[in-house]
Amino acid sequence: MTQVIRSSAELREKVATWKRSGMLVGVVPTMGALHDGHMSLVRAARKQSDRVIVTIFVNPMQFNNPEDLEKYPRDETHDLALLDEEGVDVLFAPGVAEVYPAGFATKVSVSGISEPLEGAFRPGHFDGVATVVTKLFGMTQAGRAFFGEKDWQQLQVVRRMVEDLNIPIRIIGCPTIREDDGLAMSSRNVRLSTEERASAPRLHAEMQIAAAAIRAGTPVAEALATAKAALSAAGFGPWDYLELRNAETLQPLDGLSEPARMLAAVGLGEVRLIDNIAV
Amino acid sequence: MTQVIRSSAELREKVATWKRSGMLVGVVPTMGALHDGHMSLVRAARKQSDRVIVTIFVNPMQFNNPEDLEKYPRDETHDLALLDEEGVDVLFAPGVAEVYPAGFATKVSVSGISEPLEGAFRPGHFDGVATVVTKLFGMTQAGRAFFGEKDWQQLQVVRRMVEDLNIPIRIIGCPTIREDDGLAMSSRNVRLSTEERASAPRLHAEMQIAAAAIRAGTPVAEALATAKAALSAAGFGPWDYLELRNAETLQPLDGLSEPARMLAAVGLGEVRLIDNIAV
Repeated sequence: MTQVIRSSAELREKVATWKRSGMLVGVVPTMGALHDGHMSLVRAARKQSDRVIVTIFVNPMQFNNPEDLEKYPRDETHDLALLDEEGVDVLFAPGVAEVYPAGFATKVSVSGISEPLEGAFRPGHFDGVATVVTKLFGMTQAGRAFFGEKDWQQLQVVRRMVEDLNIPIRIIGCPTIREDDGLAMSSRNVRLSTEERASAPRLHAEMQIAAAAIRAGTPVAEALATAKAALSAAGFGPWDYLELRNAETLQPLDGLSEPARMLAAVGLGEVRLIDNIAV
Repeated sequence: MTQVIRSSAELREKVATWKRSGMLVGVVPTMGALHDGHMSLVRAARKQSDRVIVTIFVNPMQFNNPEDLEKYPRDETHDLALLDEEGVDVLFAPGVAEVYPAGFATKVSVSGISEPLEGAFRPGHFDGVATVVTKLFGMTQAGRAFFGEKDWQQLQVVRRMVEDLNIPIRIIGCPTIREDDGLAMSSRNVRLSTEERASAPRLHAEMQIAAAAIRAGTPVAEALATAKAALSAAGFGPWDYLELRNAETLQPLDGLSEPARMLAAVGLGEVRLIDNIAV
């Protein structure tokens, strides 16, 4: 049975007993509303760790939009059942006051890599991510942490932060899990209408077409403009970004001289979809 | 023999072997130029840990004044001899490029407590402290860290940061060590002229007089003004601050309803002296 722990003091004791037996602890930080994307991280953690902690915490500090925070789906009972099936040892689901008690005053921020793309459209978002992830690493004292490539920029920010702060943990990125029609799995997808859900896979499809065009020599700007026009015609918008970037530093790229990643964020109805692919 | 280690990778391996044997590691973070104040921390660490790491790193990120950074005294050979005498296991003395390699982009900042006093007179200082201390805790993976009360505000900032980021380490504050005449030991004292050195103990003496007056009912502002006037007449200045504050939060106090600390920073010749006492 997956044990539910809500206090970091109790978690610390649990982890201490594991560590005394020389066990490698893996952590999968999530905001709940678990889907197959999360479960693929859980399975990776199971394979590569002796004990697995999944954390569920909808982190207010990383939401710049209060409405998005409020609407974020929550279903712990369902989540717990999924984790139990996968043999997860601990679900760590602290309350807000446990993570940010009165007097809390510390922030972890990563400059450069966290500034464009999501950083530009969600001010403060990555400070919130970097801070809560540092805390979760301290609370769980895990040796390995599993993050999805779906949130590509987040993964790079976390890697940078862990390296910069010498946090003794290994970050493992896991491929984006997609529906059969190509839509990247996301907890926000449940908020799409039937019609929007039918259009949503176009995002990934047009990104693939653009990536193929770039690899075949089409200028980057042209390939991206074509994709944007096609998607806008299909009802996508407003656009936050559709860009080609260095996969690690997220600096802008206008060619394939460096490892490249195409990243997109765009509205579809009331939902903001993000996706990214290797180019 | 104290082993000198300069790379965090080598330190990590060393610490891993200790931890596998269940040893408790203590760390004393310093900027070198070691004196009896530091050595009292080292002795506390020896008593309360199985293995002791002393770090020496003159952290550019916490110096807001490049001249102060340049003039900061350095004598590793002498420091190493002192540490060796005390049976310190490892001197970790990384270079700047080891601590801040190319691409470094992460900052730890603590709001509130780090803003007044030293924070107001040394902009960015405590960001530099919080960041490097987080890094040193990650590199050493120590279970206990020893800091002097001489840098009282720093000690409170570190405590706050460790609690806020859930870093698995216990912070131990150790009393300020003073010369026989009451002057708080500091690596900067060597830069005082003979005449300045003779006046310097007046700072602590007048602070004690003011503290006694406050305890006896003299209004805080009056007691502090008297001390300031006496010290200014004795050649101290310019003043950064002489204040009574809550000992933990460092919020201003005008009475003794809460645990109180008197803190001072003042020039004497070319040197900036700091001191603090319980009231």
